[in-house]
Amino acid sequence: MLNFEFYCPTRVFFGRDQHKRVGEIIKSYGFKKVLLHYGEGSIKKTGLYDEVVKALNDAGIDFVELGGARPNPVLGLVRKGIEICRKENVDLVLAVGGGSAIDSGKAIAVGAANDCDPWLFFMKKREPERALPVGTILTLAATGSETSASAVITNEELKLKRGYNSDFHRPLFSILNPELTYTVSPYQTACGIVDIIMHTAERYLTQKGEAEVTDRIAEAVLKSTINAGRKALKNPRDYKARATLMWAGSISHNGLTGLGRDFFMVSHQIEHEISGMFEEVAHGAGLAVVFPAWMKYAYKYNIPRFCQYAVRVWNCEMDYANPENTAIAGIEATEKFFREIGMPTTMKELNINVTDENIEEMAEKCTNYGERTLPGYIEYGKKEIIDILKLCM
Amino acid sequence: MLNFEFYCPTRVFFGRDQHKRVGEIIKSYGFKKVLLHYGEGSIKKTGLYDEVVKALNDAGIDFVELGGARPNPVLGLVRKGIEICRKENVDLVLAVGGGSAIDSGKAIAVGAANDCDPWLFFMKKREPERALPVGTILTLAATGSETSASAVITNEELKLKRGYNSDFHRPLFSILNPELTYTVSPYQTACGIVDIIMHTAERYLTQKGEAEVTDRIAEAVLKSTINAGRKALKNPRDYKARATLMWAGSISHNGLTGLGRDFFMVSHQIEHEISGMFEEVAHGAGLAVVFPAWMKYAYKYNIPRFCQYAVRVWNCEMDYANPENTAIAGIEATEKFFREIGMPTTMKELNINVTDENIEEMAEKCTNYGERTLPGYIEYGKKEIIDILKLCM
Repeated sequence: MLNFEFYCPTRVFFGRDQHKRVGEIIKSYGFKKVLLHYGEGSIKKTGLYDEVVKALNDAGIDFVELGGARPNPVLGLVRKGIEICRKENVDLVLAVGGGSAIDSGKAIAVGAANDCDPWLFFMKKREPERALPVGTILTLAATGSETSASAVITNEELKLKRGYNSDFHRPLFSILNPELTYTVSPYQTACGIVDIIMHTAERYLTQKGEAEVTDRIAEAVLKSTINAGRKALKNPRDYKARATLMWAGSISHNGLTGLGRDFFMVSHQIEHEISGMFEEVAHGAGLAVVFPAWMKYAYKYNIPRFCQYAVRVWNCEMDYANPENTAIAGIEATEKFFREIGMPTTMKELNINVTDENIEEMAEKCTNYGERTLPGYIEYGKKEIIDILKLCM
Repeated sequence: MLNFEFYCPTRVFFGRDQHKRVGEIIKSYGFKKVLLHYGEGSIKKTGLYDEVVKALNDAGIDFVELGGARPNPVLGLVRKGIEICRKENVDLVLAVGGGSAIDSGKAIAVGAANDCDPWLFFMKKREPERALPVGTILTLAATGSETSASAVITNEELKLKRGYNSDFHRPLFSILNPELTYTVSPYQTACGIVDIIMHTAERYLTQKGEAEVTDRIAEAVLKSTINAGRKALKNPRDYKARATLMWAGSISHNGLTGLGRDFFMVSHQIEHEISGMFEEVAHGAGLAVVFPAWMKYAYKYNIPRFCQYAVRVWNCEMDYANPENTAIAGIEATEKFFREIGMPTTMKELNINVTDENIEEMAEKCTNYGERTLPGYIEYGKKEIIDILKLCM
């Protein structure tokens, strides 16, 4: 078990009707002026917007609003949000939506409270000194952004997608009502399932550290997500299944499933280049393509670990004489499940036309033009990333 | 899945040598004057006291000290600590030790910051409005007090042991170095194992709420604790085993293993009466006696749940034709494990002489002299508690 620090202070309000308490919750903290930040309007269609506005009004909370956060949220909107926060003396950013609205809200919160351009944080050129507090109402089980310290933003001018971690913008509170995910489409539900699995699986399939509690918790999250994922796709209004996915999503990316083990997210890093270049690619769908390719490339560096994954998560039989068979069976089970829930597992199925030049460019960007390698079983440089991307074709 | 609120803001520093950072950590928060609170002197024998003092001095942190917190920590010492904190303008209580020192430290922290006698909080007669912040260095994997909102104090005059939960006294940070538990005796290690198991098992064996993630996480904690418990007793300096117990202990009582399910701790409540009356009884040993008795009394009210416990935690075979057999097998497996690790499972083995009058008195106290029943599969009043206590004989 490697040394670790664990800190997850977000207060979670989970369950039916909890979003109706948002005004009262904000008031209990003493905030007065909120930036209500959301996506492209689905919360208006579902009636959630009206319920949130009513709750804010009932509690006497003043607010300004900014919609328009889209999947792969962009820096332009973040800058606009920062301007509003400063002009209107906002003291809390309330993000209502999925990971995109929340990540965008986090970037606004940290940008508004510091004096430099927020992109510098994402490029690791500067460290923030503070942030406005962030609250969230979650409408999609996927990114775990509602309790995580991370945010991912796309610089639309540079076509660069970059993540950035900070305790400053970790949500102060998050409201999780599984009923708010009933209307999520099957495709987006499946993208979320993949994302939840990946946040845990990438922590699980690492080299160093032996951590029994962490391993078993990771397996708990993975098995629950697989079971509930199937049920939620069969019946979108299955409360128990939606609740399981929602809570699994939050736990999956708050650190808990990787404590005491080393931690690198190679598939996530590579996927960011795909959806950074092809904006139409949903993050979860991109991951469903990259992860099996990465596993096929990487399993041979840690066959025992891949066997544990196959047996404990996917109930594969252990082939004691030929463990490699079990490792491969686990990879196949993952790929089969992704297909079962309607996810693509190749670039072709993503409906994007990826050329050799594109792959070269993705690998260049992923290594910051040769400035870095990705750590893992091996050091992933440009050549290794190209090999993995080619396995995605 | 029942609605829930989850909040666990304690910052955990886990691993080798982490306690040597305590001065630097306290300084990073800006605190200046610490009450160093500890137990009956074992930290002086092991050298931990000197290391903590050095770390505080190196960081320029001023401190006063109060030792003497003993198992089943008492109100008298808490009052003394409160007096010191007020007189010396202490701004952080640093508890170094096991659950007793930490619980005592919590009660001091909440008592020092409010104007009434702290026992009123434990009797639920008053609500505190604030507390001094609490930091901990843990030396025993057991109570989970290092990340929990609860504290248990014994009023030695009234011979009453009462627990009290508050976010105010939940530790701000906790330092968990598994090496500090190498010197814990086999008996105390076993008591800790039972306590960890109980914090999760009592949340698990409840009636209402279906929560797949929570169930699987609870099973993860239970299985890890059973495995690591055996290893730590075999080799007290097995770092991985000690680390597993330490982290399992923290997770077991911070709420995570019961989210979305109803929650009552009947065995804990009954045990408090035993160790409240017989001070020589260690809490964990008392639990090892009460829990099997409670299970034998209660399993018939929820056989499917006890089957899940038997199969998933203890690897019992499911008897599909006669599920009751499986439920009983799980109870027997628990009792057998307690014996295997050297725990008593009857009052006789606790070496206390319990009379019928004692049992009557315990049941009276446990129901606050008829003022309350304990909730659960059934309402546990005086009669039911007496029945369970008799099963402990």
